[in-house]
Amino acid sequence: MRAVASAPGKTILFGEHFVVRGEPAVAVAVGLRARVEAEIGGDAVVVESKNLGLRESFPLHGGGEGPLYPVAVAAREGLRAANADTGVRVVVDSQIPPAAGMGSSAAVAVATVAAVAAAAGAEVEAEEVSRLAYRAEEVVHGKPSGIDNTVSAMGGAILYVKGEGARRLDIDFSPVELVLADTGIPRNTGAMVRRVLSLAERHPEVFSAIYRAAGLLARRAAELMEAGEFEAVGELMNVNHGLLSSIGVSRYEIERLVYAARRHGAFGAKLTGAGGGGFIVALAPRGVGRRIAEALGDVAARVYVVPVEEEGVRVEERDL
Amino acid sequence: MRAVASAPGKTILFGEHFVVRGEPAVAVAVGLRARVEAEIGGDAVVVESKNLGLRESFPLHGGGEGPLYPVAVAAREGLRAANADTGVRVVVDSQIPPAAGMGSSAAVAVATVAAVAAAAGAEVEAEEVSRLAYRAEEVVHGKPSGIDNTVSAMGGAILYVKGEGARRLDIDFSPVELVLADTGIPRNTGAMVRRVLSLAERHPEVFSAIYRAAGLLARRAAELMEAGEFEAVGELMNVNHGLLSSIGVSRYEIERLVYAARRHGAFGAKLTGAGGGGFIVALAPRGVGRRIAEALGDVAARVYVVPVEEEGVRVEERDL
Repeated sequence: MRAVASAPGKTILFGEHFVVRGEPAVAVAVGLRARVEAEIGGDAVVVESKNLGLRESFPLHGGGEGPLYPVAVAAREGLRAANADTGVRVVVDSQIPPAAGMGSSAAVAVATVAAVAAAAGAEVEAEEVSRLAYRAEEVVHGKPSGIDNTVSAMGGAILYVKGEGARRLDIDFSPVELVLADTGIPRNTGAMVRRVLSLAERHPEVFSAIYRAAGLLARRAAELMEAGEFEAVGELMNVNHGLLSSIGVSRYEIERLVYAARRHGAFGAKLTGAGGGGFIVALAPRGVGRRIAEALGDVAARVYVVPVEEEGVRVEERDL
Repeated sequence: MRAVASAPGKTILFGEHFVVRGEPAVAVAVGLRARVEAEIGGDAVVVESKNLGLRESFPLHGGGEGPLYPVAVAAREGLRAANADTGVRVVVDSQIPPAAGMGSSAAVAVATVAAVAAAAGAEVEAEEVSRLAYRAEEVVHGKPSGIDNTVSAMGGAILYVKGEGARRLDIDFSPVELVLADTGIPRNTGAMVRRVLSLAERHPEVFSAIYRAAGLLARRAAELMEAGEFEAVGELMNVNHGLLSSIGVSRYEIERLVYAARRHGAFGAKLTGAGGGGFIVALAPRGVGRRIAEALGDVAARVYVVPVEEEGVRVEERDL
């Protein structure tokens, strides 16, 4: 009664911030995965994180607290999906940097639900895994957009519209790769969202027009991605970055990375996620990412060169 | 038969690039002036530039060439306005940096028309001086927008719409000053305009929406300027800068200056003019400009702290 599952992190290529106002967003899964091992047994939910070097124990039902509580909630969802009334031991080992806008928390939740359900003998479809992981995320984080768990479970690229859900895009990403570079400045999602809302309240007409531009841009970008026109997609990433700058979520350290990536051969580069710090993402022809990463190495705190990850949640091992 | 006239340079606070697509722009005259001395006599148009250390002579009628030919054309317009059939000697001494997007050429043309007409005994209204200077600019530069000569002749701030002309805004600029900083990289107006048009052709819907946002923004900014709400005006300069970034005319060296100005107390900062290099403009509370200029001093090629210039073209001396 043991299983291992993994699920990828994500990055947003188009539409962050604008998505909260009903505009579409495009997110892709990235080639960094959270791996979760689950072993049925005992009468508690025991969670161990190799990344944090922590081990915590939670009851099978009821609340809880601590840095690993979100994993326990996901594990409970996995048990429930399998109708299993037993304890479980879960070990998390993730390649996805946390608090980086790369959906680390959702990927761990997705992999946990899948691993625990599989260990308890259930076969759960990716879509259902996504739904259960969302429920777990909701308990802990309030009202997440649903992008992270969806793209982590489905892999590839999704076009996401708030209230309408996600459509998986049919894209061959083999000609390109992603460069993800960290400004080294912690993003502050709450502060950024409040800043944008406050600006939008003071200048509603202007901001409505900017949101509209961003929405048209995301839909156009999705079309171009499906057509394999990655140079034009990169061009639109640059446009999208300007729109994010216009709503006040860029900063000098972000611009420095964005322009360096463009200068060293990226099709396009933009901040990704909430902004005010955090990561930038560059889209590059396959094989060029390394050169960009080297150029960014001097100014970025961390750089990852990764493919878009076609595969979403995956059960890797199962011993029943 | 001698007169001296002067006229200010300008900077665009809102709407550059978008203005060519019919959206409004806001430009202000800046406290840097071109000064022109005219002395009636002889049978040629002799132009001397203290800035260039050059002296050239042109016939009273017909064509011409050389760096000072544009001034000769403006001088001829001044003679014609005064119905004077005589030669003139014109000496140009300008504080306005050339090729900086600060309307140096138009300010020289405006001051030349006014000085020559005044030396020849005519009184010409500012509006007529602007029209004649535009005609001179047109001969030499093709099809200028008309913003530069208008704001140089009228002073203060104007809201300009292509095809509709200019409206002078009624604004008390005493609480603020401008910081103009040079990236040290020559702007290339033609290349930038072509780049924007090419992007707009490939993504027409997206760009139409961005243009619309920029137009709403310029009108809103004009209202806020008239209400004296300069903090909000600065906020919108930042938004406008993001829109300029989105259409591809910013660059790293521009962003570096823009963010440094914002960090050191500017209400707002943006690239001004064609972009791709050239100047940035920051709006600052009066007295704060010096501090910003010092902070930019390390990275900018040149920095000017100037008030908005209320007075347009002015005849300074007249000996008839």
